[in-house]
Amino acid sequence: MRYCFGVDIGGTTVKLGIFEEDGRVVDKWEIPTYTENEGVRILPDIAAAIREKMEEHDLEASACLGIGVGVPAPVTSDGVVNGSVNLGWNYKEVKKELEELTGISVVVGNDANVAALGEMWKGAGKGRQNMIMITLGTGVGGGIIVGGKVITGEHGAGGEVGHICVDYEETDHCGCGNQGCLEQYASATGIVRLAKQKMEKETRDTLLSQGEITAKAVFDAVKENDVVAMEVAERFGEYLGSGLAILAAVADPAVFVIGGGVSKAGEVLIGYIRKYYEKRAFFANKQVEFALASLGNDAGIYGAAKLALDK
Amino acid sequence: MRYCFGVDIGGTTVKLGIFEEDGRVVDKWEIPTYTENEGVRILPDIAAAIREKMEEHDLEASACLGIGVGVPAPVTSDGVVNGSVNLGWNYKEVKKELEELTGISVVVGNDANVAALGEMWKGAGKGRQNMIMITLGTGVGGGIIVGGKVITGEHGAGGEVGHICVDYEETDHCGCGNQGCLEQYASATGIVRLAKQKMEKETRDTLLSQGEITAKAVFDAVKENDVVAMEVAERFGEYLGSGLAILAAVADPAVFVIGGGVSKAGEVLIGYIRKYYEKRAFFANKQVEFALASLGNDAGIYGAAKLALDK
Repeated sequence: MRYCFGVDIGGTTVKLGIFEEDGRVVDKWEIPTYTENEGVRILPDIAAAIREKMEEHDLEASACLGIGVGVPAPVTSDGVVNGSVNLGWNYKEVKKELEELTGISVVVGNDANVAALGEMWKGAGKGRQNMIMITLGTGVGGGIIVGGKVITGEHGAGGEVGHICVDYEETDHCGCGNQGCLEQYASATGIVRLAKQKMEKETRDTLLSQGEITAKAVFDAVKENDVVAMEVAERFGEYLGSGLAILAAVADPAVFVIGGGVSKAGEVLIGYIRKYYEKRAFFANKQVEFALASLGNDAGIYGAAKLALDK
Repeated sequence: MRYCFGVDIGGTTVKLGIFEEDGRVVDKWEIPTYTENEGVRILPDIAAAIREKMEEHDLEASACLGIGVGVPAPVTSDGVVNGSVNLGWNYKEVKKELEELTGISVVVGNDANVAALGEMWKGAGKGRQNMIMITLGTGVGGGIIVGGKVITGEHGAGGEVGHICVDYEETDHCGCGNQGCLEQYASATGIVRLAKQKMEKETRDTLLSQGEITAKAVFDAVKENDVVAMEVAERFGEYLGSGLAILAAVADPAVFVIGGGVSKAGEVLIGYIRKYYEKRAFFANKQVEFALASLGNDAGIYGAAKLALDK
């Protein structure tokens, strides 16, 4: 049996998987991410976890096709990260270091791009060659796949869709320093911001006045036909639909795959997005499909494995 | 000598070139585009022109590596055009028909994408793998190259950068039916529109009140330090700079190449674009280079030839 490893490094846990060439999962597990001391332990911990599992499953090193790794940062084409806030890393030669630790060839990609690759390989975008995945979490991430390949770009910063401008009148600043970024409206944090802005002037009865306002609370209230929450969802949909229309004019996808924590709201979310997408999209792009991501937290390890297999 | 043909079909003329593998031009010439009767003559005219030149230069059919063709329309991956207003075509199997007419293999691409490929191969983007070309003509066209390949997308409509929204308050409509498209501000027509809007309320002396307002007249006046024209150029720069910042967040290029008739204004144009680009760009993309296209009207035939060589 020939196999590979898929590794998805997050700020709290590292997810790992052993995959056969056809995508069958041999094993998957997690280890904690120790970000102390500039995250110096992270790669040695991963190498140790891989060695241990190879012994446990009696896997030959010679049958290993490689290790794919997803990292929450831009990654250069030679596998270098120039800083990752979530992991504590500054300059880090991820590919070189992990290859030296394991003796196995390593391919490294940005985590959002890698998750998109996973959804294309085994998830909601299965069988597609042109797909854009949007991850709605604390921020808004993206992975743009054209002709079966992820767009990484010159500095590994391709697919930074959370930072396209969708409101030129915005006065608040995004975490990146700019104003009007998609992330300010369509992330979990952004939805809360929109809801709080609304609640400041709201006099109508609404479920949003009960308990903490979260993205989940907003969409739960939408499902109860709460008018105030539905108006928040409209604004979310207008911003995100407009942003996706821009992406479609650039990359012309067959399907948008919506993932991340916010996507757990389900089909109702897609309704709000599609309405404004269709209003804003260039005519050649109006027929695109929308799908919810289907691999959940495993998208990263699937995509990382695919990265290793495709290298 | 092995060689190929590069063919750039425009609404008025078809440009053709014979190229050696290294890009050396053996011959280049033009024939008129007859768009009558749904453009039925266009491909037979091209086939006849190619045959004639092969005889004239004594070229063996067996040494021909192919024909690359640029077309002013979206093109599917199997070389089909579903309508081109400029050529009079409805559904047209360009690849199939031209292969039957010539007996030579044919590759077809969108003209803006093909021009971008030409600039990457032999022009202002030479040696780059990640490049975005923006063509500022009657409309705004684009070609996005990532990892050396043009983004064509699912329906051949990738790189339609003229139709990304950069003004959500716009009340006028773009030719595509939407509102706020980049093309409404950054094309030759768009610049004239911005200038005319300004002149409606303008009381100051300005060169723009003398003679017809054209994009060229605006930038000629800018070079004379005409304050009114400079304010028009600022608006142009703000819209285009903002649009390019969006494109950079998506595709992360090393260089933007600016072409088309408007680009003849020269370096002054880049100054206005860069100012607003740097204001709006995501931090990872701020260091991108700007260059003026250098192949002029020949970008299309070079790119078409490259398309044939790369197939």
